[in-house]
Amino acid sequence: MGGGGGVASTTVVESREWYLAAYAPENVPTSDHLKLRTVTVSLEYDSIADQHLALQLLFISVDPYLRSTITGREGDLYLPQPPLNKALTGFGIARVVRSKNNNFNEGDIVINPFSPIAEYYVVPSDFLRKIDLSANIALPNYLSCLGIPGLTAWVAIEVIGNPKPGSNIFISAAAGGVGMLAGQLAKLKGCRVVGSTGSDKKVQLLKDEFGYDEGFNYHKESDFDAALAKYFPNGIDIYLDNVGGKMLDAVLNHINIGGHIVISGMMSQYNKIPAEREGVKNLLNMVGKDVKMEGFLCGSYLNKIGEFTQQMEKYIKEEKIKPKHKINQGIESFYESFASLFSSSNLGKVIVQVAI
Amino acid sequence: MGGGGGVASTTVVESREWYLAAYAPENVPTSDHLKLRTVTVSLEYDSIADQHLALQLLFISVDPYLRSTITGREGDLYLPQPPLNKALTGFGIARVVRSKNNNFNEGDIVINPFSPIAEYYVVPSDFLRKIDLSANIALPNYLSCLGIPGLTAWVAIEVIGNPKPGSNIFISAAAGGVGMLAGQLAKLKGCRVVGSTGSDKKVQLLKDEFGYDEGFNYHKESDFDAALAKYFPNGIDIYLDNVGGKMLDAVLNHINIGGHIVISGMMSQYNKIPAEREGVKNLLNMVGKDVKMEGFLCGSYLNKIGEFTQQMEKYIKEEKIKPKHKINQGIESFYESFASLFSSSNLGKVIVQVAI
Repeated sequence: MGGGGGVASTTVVESREWYLAAYAPENVPTSDHLKLRTVTVSLEYDSIADQHLALQLLFISVDPYLRSTITGREGDLYLPQPPLNKALTGFGIARVVRSKNNNFNEGDIVINPFSPIAEYYVVPSDFLRKIDLSANIALPNYLSCLGIPGLTAWVAIEVIGNPKPGSNIFISAAAGGVGMLAGQLAKLKGCRVVGSTGSDKKVQLLKDEFGYDEGFNYHKESDFDAALAKYFPNGIDIYLDNVGGKMLDAVLNHINIGGHIVISGMMSQYNKIPAEREGVKNLLNMVGKDVKMEGFLCGSYLNKIGEFTQQMEKYIKEEKIKPKHKINQGIESFYESFASLFSSSNLGKVIVQVAI
Repeated sequence: MGGGGGVASTTVVESREWYLAAYAPENVPTSDHLKLRTVTVSLEYDSIADQHLALQLLFISVDPYLRSTITGREGDLYLPQPPLNKALTGFGIARVVRSKNNNFNEGDIVINPFSPIAEYYVVPSDFLRKIDLSANIALPNYLSCLGIPGLTAWVAIEVIGNPKPGSNIFISAAAGGVGMLAGQLAKLKGCRVVGSTGSDKKVQLLKDEFGYDEGFNYHKESDFDAALAKYFPNGIDIYLDNVGGKMLDAVLNHINIGGHIVISGMMSQYNKIPAEREGVKNLLNMVGKDVKMEGFLCGSYLNKIGEFTQQMEKYIKEEKIKPKHKINQGIESFYESFASLFSSSNLGKVIVQVAI
């Protein structure tokens, strides 16, 4: 993690970047939609505008929400649809290789929430935040427990759900980037936590590494109602929904009076056009059982980021929160990494390491 | 409203009562399910147990929620299913004709939330509340603005929704027992209020008598999305859902960021078995728009009944709330009154007057 020395004497570099060739309204996007190309980027000092930086991407976060930003359809998650033929953006960690802002030095490591998925790029310094390397936290954590998935899990459990000790908590996509952290946060609050996930290996992970009390592989359950009756003999107090659809419908039959459903995403629905999404039929239960259901984007809770960061850094240092990362190497692995989100194949938060 | 003199010298009376002959799991219940019969009731003083009263029913409320109590299926609204062959119960107003409780005198008028739908009956005095006739409020009001529909509307608008002046409020089943009051309460808070209802006549009622800014007849709208886009150019801030199904799905496309959906009932779904209910497909909007959805039974807010009653009585006396009642005469009209709830044919809250 030196001072970007490898590119210091170069003025023009080749940079591979992922761009959107076509919107993908439904199904898992393919290599027809997401394409890699090589461009050149000038790192010549004089070519960089004031208050701009040239950055080298080190890590890029691979998140399910990205799916809804490339449908070509405004709506759904209310994130802007990026233009075609431009580099896609995501949550990234980068090294400063040229700086025209006095607050940043060459070699600084920064978080860029709108990072082009490109090996090198030049951007204004507006949204960049410097990482304090003296905190001695491994960089991928800034994309998981200290990034979007961490904030999402923390808001769901600490702010919206806010369970009492002993509450029965159900989490779907429980081994995913958000679920693995939400489960650990709920355990720290003294709850009984059960998760659903997509493979037996991940069920084991839930119990062995993330401290879940129970877990089940939803691919092996033909009847979600029966599964929930088995794992929640006393009903569900809080459900953290990351999948939507049939699982949400079954939860509505097992939620307790005064229960709370917190929706951070709907993984099972992202690849469907709205008309083909699974209808949820059991909402009437919300009336008879005084149920609250609440969706949120973690971007709406940025005012709490200080409190979040402080608490999460403490948990990481005390090893009370143990993140798990699936780190794929090289920018060329971005598409496969993204597609893998939809195949239940990952153990932990998916990250691409672009450079060292 | 005398002292029950008409029955004072009689010791045994004939009493017609509605009883449940069979559960109705789906469709509008018919006269095969709800039947009228004549029984005899002893009013002999010595035959009445201590702390019991003999009552003559004057008014009975006819409410949509009753539908879900006769499906034979526990669940949904979590109200107990009554036994077959016994008199059905509802929210009623009755006159005391015999009293074995010193707190009640013959001639007192009482509210009975669990009143048999019967001309005469003997019950323990536990759940009865005396009406203070000096308040000079017409009795049917105790079944509408001061009863279940009033408390439901008040909780939805004042407690859960709590809109700011200028908020855009949408109410379905807007001319029904709950809707007509919720709309007026929202107008008193300075909101812009639009309602959907089932006939042109009722649209007129919304605007002319209840003060709604706009209204539309949902039977005439083939595309709810288009209708909502027209009536809510600035989106919906709060939706009071009394119908569920397709209308709820369309609202999810027009709800504003931070919007609130308050569900007090789902009229369109009551006559369907759970598997055949309309699936709601647009819940993903809740994530992108930070939407809260909250179901409730007004019975969960009984701790607020004092505050509710005080505010509502004030509004009634000041004529700020104008209830409208559809009063059908004679206990024999109960079944037709109940079935009419599902045909969009009523103007105002449906009540059966059983005696004068």
